[in-house]
Amino acid sequence: MPYYIGDVIKDAKSLIARTPEKFRETGVDVQLEVRAEEIDRANKNVRLSNGTSVPYDILALGTGTSAFVPKAPGVEMEGVFVLKTLPDAIGIKTYLREKQCRKALIVGAGFIGLEMCEALRSLNLETEVIDLADRPATRWDPEFSKAIHEELVRRGVRFSPNTGMNSIEQGKDYRLRLNTKSDAIEADMILIAIGVRPNTRLAGDAGLQIGKSGAIQVDFSQHTSDGDIYAAGDCCEVYHRVSRKWTHIPLGDIANKQGRVAGFNIGGGTTIFPGVVGAQSFKIFDLAAAATGIDETEAKASGFYPVSSVIWGNAFAGSLPGDKKLGLKLVADQGSGMLLGAQAIGRTGAVERINILSTALWTGMRLEEIAYLDFAYAPPFNTSWDVIHIAARELLKKL
Amino acid sequence: MPYYIGDVIKDAKSLIARTPEKFRETGVDVQLEVRAEEIDRANKNVRLSNGTSVPYDILALGTGTSAFVPKAPGVEMEGVFVLKTLPDAIGIKTYLREKQCRKALIVGAGFIGLEMCEALRSLNLETEVIDLADRPATRWDPEFSKAIHEELVRRGVRFSPNTGMNSIEQGKDYRLRLNTKSDAIEADMILIAIGVRPNTRLAGDAGLQIGKSGAIQVDFSQHTSDGDIYAAGDCCEVYHRVSRKWTHIPLGDIANKQGRVAGFNIGGGTTIFPGVVGAQSFKIFDLAAAATGIDETEAKASGFYPVSSVIWGNAFAGSLPGDKKLGLKLVADQGSGMLLGAQAIGRTGAVERINILSTALWTGMRLEEIAYLDFAYAPPFNTSWDVIHIAARELLKKL
Repeated sequence: MPYYIGDVIKDAKSLIARTPEKFRETGVDVQLEVRAEEIDRANKNVRLSNGTSVPYDILALGTGTSAFVPKAPGVEMEGVFVLKTLPDAIGIKTYLREKQCRKALIVGAGFIGLEMCEALRSLNLETEVIDLADRPATRWDPEFSKAIHEELVRRGVRFSPNTGMNSIEQGKDYRLRLNTKSDAIEADMILIAIGVRPNTRLAGDAGLQIGKSGAIQVDFSQHTSDGDIYAAGDCCEVYHRVSRKWTHIPLGDIANKQGRVAGFNIGGGTTIFPGVVGAQSFKIFDLAAAATGIDETEAKASGFYPVSSVIWGNAFAGSLPGDKKLGLKLVADQGSGMLLGAQAIGRTGAVERINILSTALWTGMRLEEIAYLDFAYAPPFNTSWDVIHIAARELLKKL
Repeated sequence: MPYYIGDVIKDAKSLIARTPEKFRETGVDVQLEVRAEEIDRANKNVRLSNGTSVPYDILALGTGTSAFVPKAPGVEMEGVFVLKTLPDAIGIKTYLREKQCRKALIVGAGFIGLEMCEALRSLNLETEVIDLADRPATRWDPEFSKAIHEELVRRGVRFSPNTGMNSIEQGKDYRLRLNTKSDAIEADMILIAIGVRPNTRLAGDAGLQIGKSGAIQVDFSQHTSDGDIYAAGDCCEVYHRVSRKWTHIPLGDIANKQGRVAGFNIGGGTTIFPGVVGAQSFKIFDLAAAATGIDETEAKASGFYPVSSVIWGNAFAGSLPGDKKLGLKLVADQGSGMLLGAQAIGRTGAVERINILSTALWTGMRLEEIAYLDFAYAPPFNTSWDVIHIAARELLKKL
């Protein structure tokens, strides 16, 4: 059962409606369906869309991101969706049910687009994904993208590479038609999943610093450039411990941690958010793809001299039944032997390896050490030399 | 299908028989079915049981361990087994098949004994486990032992606590009878699984240092106390990075690594074995149990002041179906906040968490850092605050 548009949604509307009361019970005033129009930093006041304004001593921004929609004709048509918010999900599910859809078209083969393939196929919809790139999931090595592509095909999803959206119009055989540069694809529903942009208008208009990444600049305490204004979550930057740069990585777990740090500091504590190593994962049918750290391109841009290797090993003992094939790519700095990044793909064990290597990245561990890390070995869970050890030894040869 | 006495064994005898030729092809002389009787260090010679002797420049000991069998009457009877070697496994499998066994009795609820429950139950044998302790798997917290006990019961295995073996004799309803202090238990087959002892006679007779743990003393290069004699694997000690003591942890993955380090150094390289953090795991039917580092008792003995907490969380998103309950215990030093050990149990995700925490232990990470580690989050694989984060925050409260 796909999880992203599951039964949880049926209770969502009443949950949303109950939220203000839940907060008020704890002494927090919540106003919904009102927009913060302007921050008046001189008078420490926020002007709202309903004509009132709210004074502040400390202000916290959690404006998040918006799904990016290109300015193409037809993107506003009924049946064209993005998937960013809970109402988006409810809208998609309602439309699919009410319009007796037969085919879905997804624009963008990043992880939201790919995760949606499983949800849409489970509703027995014909499903197609297009992307400007020549392969899905470009965050991963081409060898791993190939495995993802094969999994899509195996599960009845069509992937069209090098294909962009020019416009959308009424369809003939299906409700909608998406025109590409040279062709057209019809579908009853179109999902645009080509990324998100941080919501920085409010911060930018108030003169707060916006980082090079395009997100709100913060420090390790989650202060913006105004010490009385904090920001946390997808709207702001985060320190990347491997590239040593402030970047924009809008992911839910990072947002949670930043929110906690901001709240702790606002409440009178003193703590810092120590940053991230870029760990991420997604599930595509039976396959898990995970990555952490930086790839060769990012490594070069960050002042490293990357070497890398890709190996295919077993997630658990070869003598046991089950699909245990596991691909692991490591990227390291040739000068120091320090691990810079890792990617993994497989039906089992991929996320586990990436989480272990994320912990190794956190402390700047070198391949030589990684090659001897001590794991809880038993045949159902790993091999006596884990695929991590084997990959580290393989890459050590290139130093 | 249980893995420990799987179909791999049917090819084992021919594999063993082929081994000498495989080695000779690479220029290594292998002599089987001959015992090294004595090391003559003065003349750098090893006397063999067939009357000949072999000179050496460098000698490597890999004498392993033997299963411990108490000196109790009847332990030599047909149908009483240990499980240490491949021939042991073949012997058990042959006996079970040829003698139409109905019931198996396992002495010892450590991980060999517990893993065998699954294999024996899969052959439809009535299975009982006894142990001197009041619970199975005493390496784990009583709360986790309880979960293991429940899993045994659920899968039809009887566990008898506080029960030792006094003697074995002919049975009445079954082939054998095991007498305890106050009672008797009958079974067709008895497996004694109460641990192993390092084989140190050869090393000890030659005057090599034996460590406090009872295993052969080695240094980080795998030298014994004689620089021309190396030892690796279950017969020798290993440095524990958390307790900072040389210990005896006879596990296959450690043996592999030590063998590689010894071989590398013997071959003219220079490298060290950096030690272990005590990671281990086993599978008991659908449950995985894993542990790493040291527990409270070992922590006190190693000069730490341990605090600990046990939490039960979810291995993956609560909104997804499946048994996701995951128990995680952390032990930390109250003074420094440094992680000292961890234990986990659950149907999924236990080994993964222990491997992450083993990597954290490797570098002496503190709870404060562990509480913010960056993992590859997606709902099918974890929760946005992973059970590791939650456990670290929980234990931080006790510092």
